[in-house]
Amino acid sequence: MNKSLPDRAIEWREQKLYLLDQRMLPGEVKFLSCDAVAEVFDAIKNMVVRGAPAIGITAAYGVVFSALSHREVSYRDASVRIEDDIARLATARPTAVNLNWALQRMRTCLRENAQDWIAALEREAISMHLEDVAANRKMGRLGADYLDRGSHVMTHCNAGALATGGFGTALGVIRTAYAEHKLQRVFACETRPWLQGSRLTAWELNEENIPVQLICDSAAASALRQQDIDWVIVGADRVAANGDVANKIGTCGLAIMARHLGKKFMVVAPSSSVDLATPSGTEIEVEVRASIEVTHMAAQPVAAAKVAAWNPVFDITPASLIDVLVTEKGVVEQPDRRKIEQLLSNC
Amino acid sequence: MNKSLPDRAIEWREQKLYLLDQRMLPGEVKFLSCDAVAEVFDAIKNMVVRGAPAIGITAAYGVVFSALSHREVSYRDASVRIEDDIARLATARPTAVNLNWALQRMRTCLRENAQDWIAALEREAISMHLEDVAANRKMGRLGADYLDRGSHVMTHCNAGALATGGFGTALGVIRTAYAEHKLQRVFACETRPWLQGSRLTAWELNEENIPVQLICDSAAASALRQQDIDWVIVGADRVAANGDVANKIGTCGLAIMARHLGKKFMVVAPSSSVDLATPSGTEIEVEVRASIEVTHMAAQPVAAAKVAAWNPVFDITPASLIDVLVTEKGVVEQPDRRKIEQLLSNC
Repeated sequence: MNKSLPDRAIEWREQKLYLLDQRMLPGEVKFLSCDAVAEVFDAIKNMVVRGAPAIGITAAYGVVFSALSHREVSYRDASVRIEDDIARLATARPTAVNLNWALQRMRTCLRENAQDWIAALEREAISMHLEDVAANRKMGRLGADYLDRGSHVMTHCNAGALATGGFGTALGVIRTAYAEHKLQRVFACETRPWLQGSRLTAWELNEENIPVQLICDSAAASALRQQDIDWVIVGADRVAANGDVANKIGTCGLAIMARHLGKKFMVVAPSSSVDLATPSGTEIEVEVRASIEVTHMAAQPVAAAKVAAWNPVFDITPASLIDVLVTEKGVVEQPDRRKIEQLLSNC
Repeated sequence: MNKSLPDRAIEWREQKLYLLDQRMLPGEVKFLSCDAVAEVFDAIKNMVVRGAPAIGITAAYGVVFSALSHREVSYRDASVRIEDDIARLATARPTAVNLNWALQRMRTCLRENAQDWIAALEREAISMHLEDVAANRKMGRLGADYLDRGSHVMTHCNAGALATGGFGTALGVIRTAYAEHKLQRVFACETRPWLQGSRLTAWELNEENIPVQLICDSAAASALRQQDIDWVIVGADRVAANGDVANKIGTCGLAIMARHLGKKFMVVAPSSSVDLATPSGTEIEVEVRASIEVTHMAAQPVAAAKVAAWNPVFDITPASLIDVLVTEKGVVEQPDRRKIEQLLSNC
């Protein structure tokens, strides 16, 4: 299949991993090729790849490199070294829940395949990657069903091919709806302070020829009121057991505005992002990053030297503001604890 | 009186005008001195001064320079030339309602003072300046009455000394509340795309030693929820007859979030900003500026070349979301057409 550029953000070919360097976008489209676990570690740590599912898949390929580098020794000796590499990979980024989830799958695969373990690990990583894309395509179809012909939608941050194994979660719904001739225009919030909306989402949609218009985060209410927007569609970093959603800072504000203005709010996330061990959003610890991300722009100060910023990276959107939660296992409207439990017990 | 730096943003001394160059803030505190109408025109056009009341006052001093430059000719000849300069000053910025209001006052003063018209015009400009500061101080007291001890407040854009003749509208309330030991902390939204929050408001509050914390515009909902904020306090570019308010893009979103989260929303504006000729917000035309203000950051592109942004500069906050409208003529709670008419008829 002829893949689009965003869908080639993570590519495994002949035991080499090719990563689209997201730090250079949109100015430069540059691929980094890796064939060693240390390179994969650095690529995750230095944000060549970002987005929870994308990080997990990349790390899984890192484990394959670890296995390949220990092909000369016994299964027993190799296992010890590979498990060391797995433990090290898990430290590449602090918050990524999917990173641990993916590495746990690789660990289990290693332990269960004393024979032919290198091939088994490679198969497992590729499966994980393909499963993620398949889940995104499934979510794309399920979510697009909610959109009417001629829809205008708004999205925040980047929940696209670049953040996943390919196709994307929120952008997967948007791509499917566009392919089905339902979608007319996407409004992408620029997503300060890191501008994932400007740098990644707008680039990704533009590459697919999906009409996209960028807005300042503060123009969201005006866009919702004046641009015939029907749906706000976002991804999620974590979904609590009661349906509360942690996602990029600004998401909760959009959900409040959407509700007030009579617009619908959709969260698209694979079931692996639902964390039943977290009862509600209250229990999710939100990372607060350095003030300098806000007080400086392109390394230049934009605020007086003594001024500090409060810079939380995520916010919590209460389940009560979410109209539809889309997972690859199915869709939940007005999510709550009971409905989510029921959904996850589906096979 | 020993004035603070922000309060000296517009200063008239010995028939010279000193303007704090707001384009250089917060990096550099530089004053531009003017003594000719052409210099004043350029200072307004090139945004050395900004903020509707500040622009009006600056233009009034420009008219004084015009009069001074025609002191050698007859009143009749001078009048023609001064009226030409007034007409030209009115074109320096397109949207500023206060600019026309101030120039109309100067025109009337000129026509009514065939004797000693130069001194009359200078007195009129100085009066206008002093009246604005007095109105701000009055509004400061009226607004601060609504704040309880230990308050945390949020503000947007810059409605401070820098935007007015001195002291400020929204920041006037904040300064008064701080002086009365009621205010504990201000959260200033950075206010993309021009960052008036980072560059001006944070600087101004910091100069006054008022504790200020900067946030990304998208962090507003999180700040409202987690930082014990009681009031959102903003200025206004125009207030329609029914109480709808045009103000910097992002204001309406803040009002929606404040209402949803049970916080109070205060608009502070002089009665000259109330436009009875505009029935409601629907009739206010909102300026949409160039895409490049959003797609570029410090002259560097942050979005793919083909991506365009929708960049409205103001938004309309419906009166129904405003808890308190503060003017120098008095305060209106839950503003509507009847209450506003009544307020304006007070002397």
